[in-house]
This record gives sequence, C-alpha cells and structure tokens, in this order.
Amino acid sequence: MRAIVLLSGGLDSYTAAAIARSEGYELFALTIQYGQRHARELDAARAVARALGVERHLELPIDLRAIGGSALTADIAVPLDRDLSAPGIPETYVPARNTIFLALALAWAETIGGRDIVIGVNALDYSGYPDCRPEFIRAFESLANVATRAGIEGARFTIHTPLIAFSKADIIRRGLALGLDYGLTHSCYAPAPSGAPCGRCDSCVLRARGFAEAGVADPAALR
Amino acid sequence: MRAIVLLSGGLDSYTAAAIARSEGYELFALTIQYGQRHARELDAARAVARALGVERHLELPIDLRAIGGSALTADIAVPLDRDLSAPGIPETYVPARNTIFLALALAWAETIGGRDIVIGVNALDYSGYPDCRPEFIRAFESLANVATRAGIEGARFTIHTPLIAFSKADIIRRGLALGLDYGLTHSCYAPAPSGAPCGRCDSCVLRARGFAEAGVADPAALR
Repeated sequence: MRAIVLLSGGLDSYTAAAIARSEGYELFALTIQYGQRHARELDAARAVARALGVERHLELPIDLRAIGGSALTADIAVPLDRDLSAPGIPETYVPARNTIFLALALAWAETIGGRDIVIGVNALDYSGYPDCRPEFIRAFESLANVATRAGIEGARFTIHTPLIAFSKADIIRRGLALGLDYGLTHSCYAPAPSGAPCGRCDSCVLRARGFAEAGVADPAALR
Repeated sequence: MRAIVLLSGGLDSYTAAAIARSEGYELFALTIQYGQRHARELDAARAVARALGVERHLELPIDLRAIGGSALTADIAVPLDRDLSAPGIPETYVPARNTIFLALALAWAETIGGRDIVIGVNALDYSGYPDCRPEFIRAFESLANVATRAGIEGARFTIHTPLIAFSKADIIRRGLALGLDYGLTHSCYAPAPSGAPCGRCDSCVLRARGFAEAGVADPAALR
C-alpha cells in the first residue's frame, strides 16, 4: 500500500515515516519548500528520504512568505528561551500550514491511488499549534472524503498520526529502536549561517529535553 | 470587513467577488497559478481584479503539474463535446484543487485578520466536481475553525458561496445587473494558441448555454 508521508527533515516526520514503513507502507515522501529561512532543513529532508528508501521524494515549492504572518515566513523574530508552559501560540505558528500541507498530500495521494497520509504531529511536547491537535486531524479526514473523486467513489482516506500521543522522548526511543540515524535530522527554527542549531528556540529546547529524557546523546549535536 | 476572494479569471469567480463587494466587503483577491496550460487565464484574472478595484491581488504560484492527475495539470486530453448529463467526474477534475485553494485562502485570511472567504463554486451548471458541493464547503468551514489560531481564539470563518445554487444563466444575469464586463473573463480549458476559446470543452459549453439562456450575447465571443 502506498502512503504519502509529509517529510520536513526534522526528527518527528522521520520517525512517523519509519513507523509507516515498518507497517508495510510504500513511502511517497512530500517535502513542501514553503519559504523556510534555511536550506539546511531541505538538505535534511533529502538525507532522511534517502535513509528511508522512499519510493519517491517530491519537493514542492510554495512561497508562503507571500502570505507571511509567522516568524518562519515573515520578518518576525523567532522567540528564544521561551517558557514552554506559557499559554498561547507562539509566533512560529504558520497560518493554516498543516491544512495546506495535508491538502497537497491529499492531492498526491489521490493521484497515485493511495489512501493513507502520514504526518508526524505530536500534541504533547509541542508548541500548542492548533493544526497539530487530534480534532484538526479528524476534521481533515472528514473533509478528505467529501473533497475528492476517490472519496465520492467510496474510498476512505486515513490521516495517520503515529506520534500524536508520544512525548519527544517516546518518539526518540521508538526511532532508535527502528534503527534511525537522528544525526541526519535538523530541528532548529533559527540556525546560524553555518547551519548550527541555536539551542534556544522551542524546537531546539524540545529536542534537547527529549534526548535528555530518553537518556541518549543527540547525534546531530556531535557533528 | 476584509474578504479573500479566489479569483480565476472566469465568470463565476468574477461574479462571486462582485456580489461580495456589493455587500460591503473589501476584496483581497487570490489567484493560484497552479500550472494552468494557458497564461490567458491569468491575464483575465488580472483584468478582472483591476475591474473589481480589489485592495490587493496576490498571485501565488504552485505547480500542481508536479502532482498531475488531471487534464489541466498532466498530459491528459481535455474532453470535448462531452455529454454533460453523463454520470461521473471528467478528466478536468484536479485532485483536491479546491481544498488546496481554500487552505491558501484561509492562511491569507488569518494573516490579514479576515474571517470571510468567497469562492465561486456552483453545484448546478458544473462538471460534477466533488469540491464544488455544499457538503465540501461545510466540511472546510468546520476544518477552518479548528485549524487556525484565530479559530481557537474564538473567530468563526465563513466560506461564502453566493453562486452555489445558481444556474449559469442566473450568474450571468446577476453579474450584468451588477454592471460586470464579462468580456474580460476567460473560461475555456483548451484554448487555441491565440487564446481563442475552443467552444467544445465543458467550460465553453456551459458558458455558451448560460448566455443563450440569459438571452444575451457573450461579449468575450465578440472580441
């Protein structure tokens, strides 16, 4: 069976894809080049796709900087050293990002005759983004079945979120058990020009906590 | 109030936008350059946006030919002289197109503080596309409110479909009453290299029938 996997180059999507592969899915990896500030993330997505042995890796550019509204797509500073327990959604939220990503994944799934879409969202160790929550995923699944020719003809699309209830440490443990090389991945929102992670954005902090809690060293930090 | 209007350059989206404008909305027009085969459609979108006096016209390229799956995005012939009453969805269906378009419209709406999105879908004189039906629109509206920061904070997005129950003749009559110049629009799926409409694709046939039923000449046919 063919599954579309949304692959960012970070450790969550790598792990989610590997779980789908371990369940027997043939992987079609989709990386959206949405105007991330750093090409480092795309290099990581390519390395991860190679490591996973995906059937195909499609990189699709769409410049969300034309829309803006986020620290990742506009001239808004990425928050550093943030209190992750503080309420509210940080400026790294990209308006409707996962809706756009899943819509493109759905288009590709329908085209290749796939009914499964894998996304590495995680509603536990995350930044509170609305489009990482189970209610969003369920709403998208309902939409997919009325939005498509395949759905009208009786197909049922499934959005797989294997990590949704995992802590970051759980994700890392699971990935290591699957033999993943997290040294290939990149998580930082605000890396140095060299590509080195800042260590202070939400993504870096959540990653570091996850490795610490899992009791292993982050191989990316050693490179 | 600000509304995002999806503007294709065809007569439906022009009319839908004009209706929203007549209701007092400030228009932010979004044209997705999705790999249409003909630049003629984009020229029409620009002319229509100018005629409407939109606040801003954003043209966003996203190459859906990388995904394919349609006569509009792959090397599949546009069906001509088709029996429009035949069951089934024709090859001009673009997988998940309106899901992608509305997702991008939602992102822009959230960014500019708008809560209203206008789309010229029409479930009467149309080609049976799943993502032109009221159930699709309702599902997207539900999704929008769980997908976004604005939705979480209590905003309610509305997808306006002023034409959904109109026949093509109704649309044309309404647009003419609003003073629209349909000579600016372009509907054909398979125009000649000169830009002249083929007269035989679904879109041309539905347009011609609409003008005939409304009892007026198509000004675009006279140019």
